[in-house]
Amino acid sequence: MLVSKIQTSLAYEVSSASEFFLNMLVSKKSQLILDERLHVGYVNRHGVESVIHFQKNIDAVGGRFASFTAQEGTVGVEYTARVVTNNERRPADAAIYSISRLPKKTIPCLRPSRYCESDVLSAQVQSLFRAQGDGIALVESIIDWIQDNIQYEVGCSDSTTSAWDVFEKRKGVCRDFAHMAITFCRALNIPARFCVGYIYFDEPPQDFHAIFEAYLGGRWIKFDPTRLAPPDHLVVIARGNDAKDTPFATIFGSIRTTRMRINIVQEDPYSDFRVAAGDEQQAIIGR
Amino acid sequence: MLVSKIQTSLAYEVSSASEFFLNMLVSKKSQLILDERLHVGYVNRHGVESVIHFQKNIDAVGGRFASFTAQEGTVGVEYTARVVTNNERRPADAAIYSISRLPKKTIPCLRPSRYCESDVLSAQVQSLFRAQGDGIALVESIIDWIQDNIQYEVGCSDSTTSAWDVFEKRKGVCRDFAHMAITFCRALNIPARFCVGYIYFDEPPQDFHAIFEAYLGGRWIKFDPTRLAPPDHLVVIARGNDAKDTPFATIFGSIRTTRMRINIVQEDPYSDFRVAAGDEQQAIIGR
Amino acid sequence: MLVSKIQTSLAYEVSSASEFFLNMLVSKKSQLILDERLHVGYVNRHGVESVIHFQKNIDAVGGRFASFTAQEGTVGVEYTARVVTNNERRPADAAIYSISRLPKKTIPCLRPSRYCESDVLSAQVQSLFRAQGDGIALVESIIDWIQDNIQYEVGCSDSTTSAWDVFEKRKGVCRDFAHMAITFCRALNIPARFCVGYIYFDEPPQDFHAIFEAYLGGRWIKFDPTRLAPPDHLVVIARGNDAKDTPFATIFGSIRTTRMRINIVQEDPYSDFRVAAGDEQQAIIGR
Amino acid sequence: MLVSKIQTSLAYEVSSASEFFLNMLVSKKSQLILDERLHVGYVNRHGVESVIHFQKNIDAVGGRFASFTAQEGTVGVEYTARVVTNNERRPADAAIYSISRLPKKTIPCLRPSRYCESDVLSAQVQSLFRAQGDGIALVESIIDWIQDNIQYEVGCSDSTTSAWDVFEKRKGVCRDFAHMAITFCRALNIPARFCVGYIYFDEPPQDFHAIFEAYLGGRWIKFDPTRLAPPDHLVVIARGNDAKDTPFATIFGSIRTTRMRINIVQEDPYSDFRVAAGDEQQAIIGR
Repeated sequence: MLVSKIQTSLAYEVSSASEFFLNMLVSKKSQLILDERLHVGYVNRHGVESVIHFQKNIDAVGGRFASFTAQEGTVGVEYTARVVTNNERRPADAAIYSISRLPKKTIPCLRPSRYCESDVLSAQVQSLFRAQGDGIALVESIIDWIQDNIQYEVGCSDSTTSAWDVFEKRKGVCRDFAHMAITFCRALNIPARFCVGYIYFDEPPQDFHAIFEAYLGGRWIKFDPTRLAPPDHLVVIARGNDAKDTPFATIFGSIRTTRMRINIVQEDPYSDFRVAAGDEQQAIIGR
Repeated sequence: MLVSKIQTSLAYEVSSASEFFLNMLVSKKSQLILDERLHVGYVNRHGVESVIHFQKNIDAVGGRFASFTAQEGTVGVEYTARVVTNNERRPADAAIYSISRLPKKTIPCLRPSRYCESDVLSAQVQSLFRAQGDGIALVESIIDWIQDNIQYEVGCSDSTTSAWDVFEKRKGVCRDFAHMAITFCRALNIPARFCVGYIYFDEPPQDFHAIFEAYLGGRWIKFDPTRLAPPDHLVVIARGNDAKDTPFATIFGSIRTTRMRINIVQEDPYSDFRVAAGDEQQAIIGR
Repeated sequence: MLVSKIQTSLAYEVSSASEFFLNMLVSKKSQLILDERLHVGYVNRHGVESVIHFQKNIDAVGGRFASFTAQEGTVGVEYTARVVTNNERRPADAAIYSISRLPKKTIPCLRPSRYCESDVLSAQVQSLFRAQGDGIALVESIIDWIQDNIQYEVGCSDSTTSAWDVFEKRKGVCRDFAHMAITFCRALNIPARFCVGYIYFDEPPQDFHAIFEAYLGGRWIKFDPTRLAPPDHLVVIARGNDAKDTPFATIFGSIRTTRMRINIVQEDPYSDFRVAAGDEQQAIIGR
Repeated sequence: MLVSKIQTSLAYEVSSASEFFLNMLVSKKSQLILDERLHVGYVNRHGVESVIHFQKNIDAVGGRFASFTAQEGTVGVEYTARVVTNNERRPADAAIYSISRLPKKTIPCLRPSRYCESDVLSAQVQSLFRAQGDGIALVESIIDWIQDNIQYEVGCSDSTTSAWDVFEKRKGVCRDFAHMAITFCRALNIPARFCVGYIYFDEPPQDFHAIFEAYLGGRWIKFDPTRLAPPDHLVVIARGNDAKDTPFATIFGSIRTTRMRINIVQEDPYSDFRVAAGDEQQAIIGR
């Protein structure tokens, strides 16, 4: 059991009326929100805010969106939440299910998606790996391959970069690592899905993080192909087929992001585990 | 935040093939299950069990059912769960919403139901109370009325007893108290629903408990008209319009219940709060 | 295949601000709406209307609600729809399913509800009938019993009348006949649900009608215990556990119904079948 | 109103145990199925069949899947259905909704998907077209562009071909034309989705067909960028973000398709419209 306290502070310069869809509220699936507060408003030079009303909604894809329209000005978004998650120990062995044994709802997670062209890379992946009984060992060997062959490099990719691109350029950030691993899993008939959220990093800055889940032994198991943090520490925001389903912010209009600070404290009240993000630091999107 | 550990042990003498639908697994809504185990089997005189396979399913009404068929013999059911709940402090003030402001999904909770004949009792309730701005004060005055006028008496009602019956006989158990309060709320245009679960009682035996939720100030708030335990300590199993939607066991066949033991430990890791059900005791259904 | 054209015209005298929830739009389940128009407005002495805007919504229970707030004045509601339904021939034989074979979603339709106290009447029903293999014959014998023992009498019951009341008073209208039959089916472990809609009557006035569906042979089959019209001709508005789930209008406030006219034309383009409600007539609620 | 009769006949040589997921049953959304029959079995040299049992299920993405496991041998699939659809006249004018006015459920249909890289093609599309008030005229001008610039050529693309590929190669089949149009719409902030089904072609062979729907004026409107048949005549099987969500057959194993015949009759009982697919012909996948 992990209790996480999250503080997110964003600011945008809006130069003309813009529509915001924020997907940074933590998920209610298999997580317990103890308390949560979202505050959106205009900030003037005196720091005084006037409130912008927003709508909270459940999207078809599973995240919890907050949407609002902002006019010209400086918009501030402040989000705080305390969340309990269940950092389950990973089972020693979790078999790959044959197709006939898979629940129907996992079938879409076998298909290619915008950033995970498992159809194109199928032959190459199958020559590298063989889908065998113990799924966890196989997924870990996929991650080993990614660690050995793909360089983690901040700023090297953008929002159009797909697994195929990364397979060729051999570098990427967390979302690219996750897209690679998902693509490999799907090419081996293991359902896999994208998962974004908040997690504490030993090395600052704190940031949103992307990992993935593979369906093994009858359940979804978290893996982090960047190996930057323990995957079971992730406080999930949203899950989807790939990054296109889980943008933390979709903005239609003309804006500039001027602040993005994330502060995370995580602890286990039943053990000595406790981490605290010290100073608030400027985060870089896409770690 | 409360961490509850629940152990339920049931035994049935089955005299001919019977269908069991158990609805005693804790709810996943606004609760985090840390771990959970359900075990069903035949017990012989040597205590040896052979396993009965069951299906877990989501029912239309919201509970999590486990169903199985048992043949002649002694059937044992063992359930353990560790669950985190959020015992929120009740807001100081939560207004009664006008009908036009209520979310559509709360409208069915304004209607009469099998055990809550708010249509029949409407005039009498409206002469006793007046729906006013502060909903919590009104609901508490409903509970005051029930405490003053209805006697809590174990065994005085059965599965066909409705709020109307209790209004006339002036005695009942927890489910009857909840039906009364729900009926009164609905007659005053406050959406109300039935809620069953596990809770620690200072006085043994431990048992299933029934309370209710009223929709006030834009949220569902728990109230316990028996005032036997703090309502925010309830670990919810199921919610429904009344007791007909939330039977902890529905059995079609010929059986006799020979054991029903519930053991509950509740604690708050961040405070000194800790209660532990000591000896396992024989519980009486319907406290 | 039946093509039905429905015209409903309602008028209300509203004496103070009132909330309307209309559930008279035809269902989209297993029906195809060719076109549909709902118009709500204030009518003055010159017949001129000003429009009232309404919201259409899906309710938890399954109907399609249109809701609006009306101020003091005369409110007119005009609804027209053309709908295709599939008047399937009833199978010659449809077995009663054992409990273990029933889909989980049908289980709530075995439970008692506000107007169908199958728990109370269980013993009496079981002494009258025996649940046997051929479900259609059994359900028809239930309807025979109702036809022989319950008198159809307009105006003899009200919105609080339940099956138990009718069982004692031996008279009722269509909704009471349906409640009786549902109660009998549930007491015999046959899932049954309430079903309201539009149907053409040979004898005017045209009106809303209530029938029921029993779950036999793996599907829901329509029966009309009043035997006033062929059940497969019903254009369904809503289904529910009983009449409390399917009110064609729920109004919170102070109003008086001053007009309720229903006009129905039904035809089968592939056969000679064609009926047409001639003059618009004043209908009586609750036929 | 259109009544369509569909007959589909498929045969597969299965060389080792294979899992079949067929998504060729017609959709129940806004369509009325009058009758429907699916039959799956092994065929031997005497034409005798032994039945293969299958499961029908609702998939997360919206189609109705039938799944089964087949062993070595010749497998035959026979599907017949009679379906009523509503071929509504297209509104004269249907405005493009601003983002803030779009229902949340349409937002995913603005995002790129596996075969519709609207993120990559965004700048090019925006230089070709300008999103303006009348959506239908804009979408028709997109289709004009596709008709002028993309050559329809059977067999020129495969299951990995995306809109970007087609934009470069300038040729494709119906699914590629639909992917192009969807990509263009999304790049112009018009929600668009893929739609497959059965439709009668003047020129044989009859086949599955892919078109798309754009969200304009508050509703989904069908368009066929191949202009091979009237889009409102389509009997829909499934809708999705692109072709990856709507494969008519997904087969895991070693098989060879040996027969695929589709026969379609469409008529309007209220007009003279009637088309009948004459001889059963061998269809080519992917028209």
